[in-house]
Amino acid sequence: MGKSKKEALRRTVLEAAAKLFAQRGFGGTNLQDIADSLGISRPALYYYFKSKDDILASLVEEVTVFSVHQATELASKADFNPSETLRQMVFNHAKWLLEHPIEFRVVDRTENDLPAATRRTHDKAKRALLDNFTRIVERGIELGHFRPVDATVAAFSIIGMCSWTAWWFMPHGRVPLDEVAKSIADFAVAGLRWGNNVLPREFGAEEALRRVKDDLAHLERLIRRSDKRR
Amino acid sequence: MGKSKKEALRRTVLEAAAKLFAQRGFGGTNLQDIADSLGISRPALYYYFKSKDDILASLVEEVTVFSVHQATELASKADFNPSETLRQMVFNHAKWLLEHPIEFRVVDRTENDLPAATRRTHDKAKRALLDNFTRIVERGIELGHFRPVDATVAAFSIIGMCSWTAWWFMPHGRVPLDEVAKSIADFAVAGLRWGNNVLPREFGAEEALRRVKDDLAHLERLIRRSDKRR
Repeated sequence: MGKSKKEALRRTVLEAAAKLFAQRGFGGTNLQDIADSLGISRPALYYYFKSKDDILASLVEEVTVFSVHQATELASKADFNPSETLRQMVFNHAKWLLEHPIEFRVVDRTENDLPAATRRTHDKAKRALLDNFTRIVERGIELGHFRPVDATVAAFSIIGMCSWTAWWFMPHGRVPLDEVAKSIADFAVAGLRWGNNVLPREFGAEEALRRVKDDLAHLERLIRRSDKRR
Repeated sequence: MGKSKKEALRRTVLEAAAKLFAQRGFGGTNLQDIADSLGISRPALYYYFKSKDDILASLVEEVTVFSVHQATELASKADFNPSETLRQMVFNHAKWLLEHPIEFRVVDRTENDLPAATRRTHDKAKRALLDNFTRIVERGIELGHFRPVDATVAAFSIIGMCSWTAWWFMPHGRVPLDEVAKSIADFAVAGLRWGNNVLPREFGAEEALRRVKDDLAHLERLIRRSDKRR
């Protein structure tokens, strides 16, 4: 069997197992159930995974490790802009979760049943995700892009917005997946940037001029409108 | 026994039960365990709750119904300001969750085990909470206070930020409870208000003038700074 074909079949087994874990709980599912749901024999299943713990370990690997890699990569880019980097990080994380809600739910709900080694991988990856988000928020505050919030609380708030999608998003609902991810990313960035009422510490002359022009144009419209009413 | 004393003891039973459900799961806990953990007899426990389902129903009532009442009250107030109303709603909801993380976690994790009638109460309250947040966001958009986002996605994002605290907040950690609630409320409002780069649809002449003055003052500082460097 070619490597890519084996990988595709392994993915299929993983998804079927995740679905059963989500429906019946990890404790309520055995390897026979998984084999049955795929219409294959138990020996055929053994070819991909040796045990339930082995399957769970793979799910943890998928769910927690992927997002972290992406985030670390983005945060270390040379042309660094806190808002745009954060927007991209949140978008990627949300999109990944939106595409893998069942896997995420299973890992999240079986945290306490994870074998010790898998639990360590899981905890480490979760910690790294939190650290990545915290660092980018801190960096944005230092550079005057973001409000001086508690960076850890902000990072947890962002992670919460993303994680919660696994319990409410409908794949074929009214709002497409990419739009939900974009909406959450925009929310996160807007929630941290300075609002209308405060001037950021670092605020270039060009941006100030652009704002003055915008405001004057708006004032002009307001005057014209009130002239018409007279 | 006086009414308030009975109520206080009932609360104690409820909290002990929630703690056990959180540790061992709903299925892994029986009435005897709850009685034992309180050092009382089973008949004494019966005085407060007739069954495990009865306890779960009370937890659901607590967790989901309280927040909704508060939100409904706020949203119907006469001196209505979308930002301030939303800030207060998010603060109250977050604060309540931060004060009852175990109860919330138990209800959230036993959703599928809820008896039919309790499940209906739970679903109705969750729906009402979502509706309350959605409506206030919609109202804020109509009035030009908020960006034209998808109100339902925004409401779910806010609920996600609040709900997630039940899994990360440390009651005696670095950041006090009230500050976390305030930080989440600020995040929610800032995430929806117009940023520096966009003009709200309704934007008074006074606000525009104030912004122009702020920006000119800032430009002045920038020019003075670059003059000094020459």
